[in-house]
Amino acid sequence: MADPKLSHIIDWYKGLQDRICSRLEGLDGTATFSEDKWQRPEGGGGRSRVIQGKHIEKGGVMFSAIDGDMPEVIAKGLGIEPTHFHATGVSIVLHPNNPWVPIIHMNVRYFETDRGDWWFGGGIDVTPHYIIKTQAKDFHLHLKNVCDKHDETYYPKFKEWADNYFFIKHRNETRGIGGIFFDRLSGDIDDFDSRHAFVKDVGSAFVPIYSRLVEANMDIPIEVKDKAWQSVRRGRYVEFNLVWDRGTKFGLDTNGRTESILMSLPPIAHWHYNHNPTDNPKALETLQFLKKGVNWIA
Amino acid sequence: MADPKLSHIIDWYKGLQDRICSRLEGLDGTATFSEDKWQRPEGGGGRSRVIQGKHIEKGGVMFSAIDGDMPEVIAKGLGIEPTHFHATGVSIVLHPNNPWVPIIHMNVRYFETDRGDWWFGGGIDVTPHYIIKTQAKDFHLHLKNVCDKHDETYYPKFKEWADNYFFIKHRNETRGIGGIFFDRLSGDIDDFDSRHAFVKDVGSAFVPIYSRLVEANMDIPIEVKDKAWQSVRRGRYVEFNLVWDRGTKFGLDTNGRTESILMSLPPIAHWHYNHNPTDNPKALETLQFLKKGVNWIA
Repeated sequence: MADPKLSHIIDWYKGLQDRICSRLEGLDGTATFSEDKWQRPEGGGGRSRVIQGKHIEKGGVMFSAIDGDMPEVIAKGLGIEPTHFHATGVSIVLHPNNPWVPIIHMNVRYFETDRGDWWFGGGIDVTPHYIIKTQAKDFHLHLKNVCDKHDETYYPKFKEWADNYFFIKHRNETRGIGGIFFDRLSGDIDDFDSRHAFVKDVGSAFVPIYSRLVEANMDIPIEVKDKAWQSVRRGRYVEFNLVWDRGTKFGLDTNGRTESILMSLPPIAHWHYNHNPTDNPKALETLQFLKKGVNWIA
Repeated sequence: MADPKLSHIIDWYKGLQDRICSRLEGLDGTATFSEDKWQRPEGGGGRSRVIQGKHIEKGGVMFSAIDGDMPEVIAKGLGIEPTHFHATGVSIVLHPNNPWVPIIHMNVRYFETDRGDWWFGGGIDVTPHYIIKTQAKDFHLHLKNVCDKHDETYYPKFKEWADNYFFIKHRNETRGIGGIFFDRLSGDIDDFDSRHAFVKDVGSAFVPIYSRLVEANMDIPIEVKDKAWQSVRRGRYVEFNLVWDRGTKFGLDTNGRTESILMSLPPIAHWHYNHNPTDNPKALETLQFLKKGVNWIA
């Protein structure tokens, strides 16, 4: 890629972070983001923004644009020649206060090397503490529409990818209701603009998707048992992120900024031995749906 | 190993679990262990015992004796020929209620193959929420005495091993004040009894070591800020166990019993972005000592 294209993408991601933060502050109504700017000795840096509010108990909206010489072992893993690389993107995890509002995660990213490799990656997925099927359908339909605008093969492919990626193998359960996940979305140089346009649409879909989920659920009255169940599900979120998430692993292995990487962890989590929420029928029902291959839009 | 030796070791570990559980129930004074017996389709099984009491907020004392055919990839990792193997041991993690009492972990284990490989492994390490230097010295002296009785090279070697093993790389801090850790302790067949005798002494040291730590600290009055700090340190414990602990990883990768493996996780953990306990001088002091190579018995 020529430099102007890269800096255009970086600027777009920066602007996305700005727009999302501003809309989330409006949605929360009480809190504002605080920002840490950081630099990476090997090249580049980022802006980590976090919020602790009324509706968003703990949330992070992270932008980074880094570059450097790729370690041989990482290049080998990617199947490319080691060379200078650039990586930029926006990552979000929001842990809501009300257990009826799902945890949401979004990531859009771009990667290129000085040898001409380039690709996009990203996705949006949702982890409800309680699954509400109409909302799950609505969420997946929204993603399908975003995908279909660009390529009708995207949604089925990227939905399946999300089911397989956001899977807590040692629990034999999915993290939540999935969404879409994609990586190494590339092509000929002629495809560049259309790929970028798709990823932009994914990034832009975040606020409308999350707003609907918050507004539909934020005023549902909560009981002690709902917060207790939320803490258990948050424990599973911790397990996925620390044991299975490749992004987290990559960041911690390559000396990334720990506080930015682990921003995805919930404010609180509980672990009970052999937990079974027999007193909570909605929780039991939710567990039934934490599996791969559910057709939410049927 | 001839079978009688193996069954002798298995019986000894079983008895160790019984003795430790009975002493811990006495120490707690209110709660008793509940037990889950489990079997492994591939061979063997275990007895998982958990307690939730007044002084022990959440604790597990696990015995297992498994056997099976070793997957080639694991044999390769161990540098041995793939064959039928037996593995048995006792694992303990106790999360105390009072933050002045440390988290303690102990493991003793034995491994052998049908081709004649055999070794012991194990260790004891302690994770104080607040480090009290006189107690850290007392703990390490106790371990040194156990080691010195068998081999004067053990303590310095196994203390350094614990420092390196119980290290949270992405935080650049040790999990706690360490202790001893050792693996693949083997030798000629003539060395078998002396190796076993050492590991027995490590296992038998657990109750006296933990009793001293509980009795010295369990009645120290606690404040809200102490429980808050405990939850943050418990978060670090989760990070170590899920990201770095090879035993946990091995168990989750090889379809072990998840609830037994993750018994080591605390009942509750907190994550705050960029946390710095400026209001808690004892916490700040503790952070100063979470590094490798501290000579606690000096």
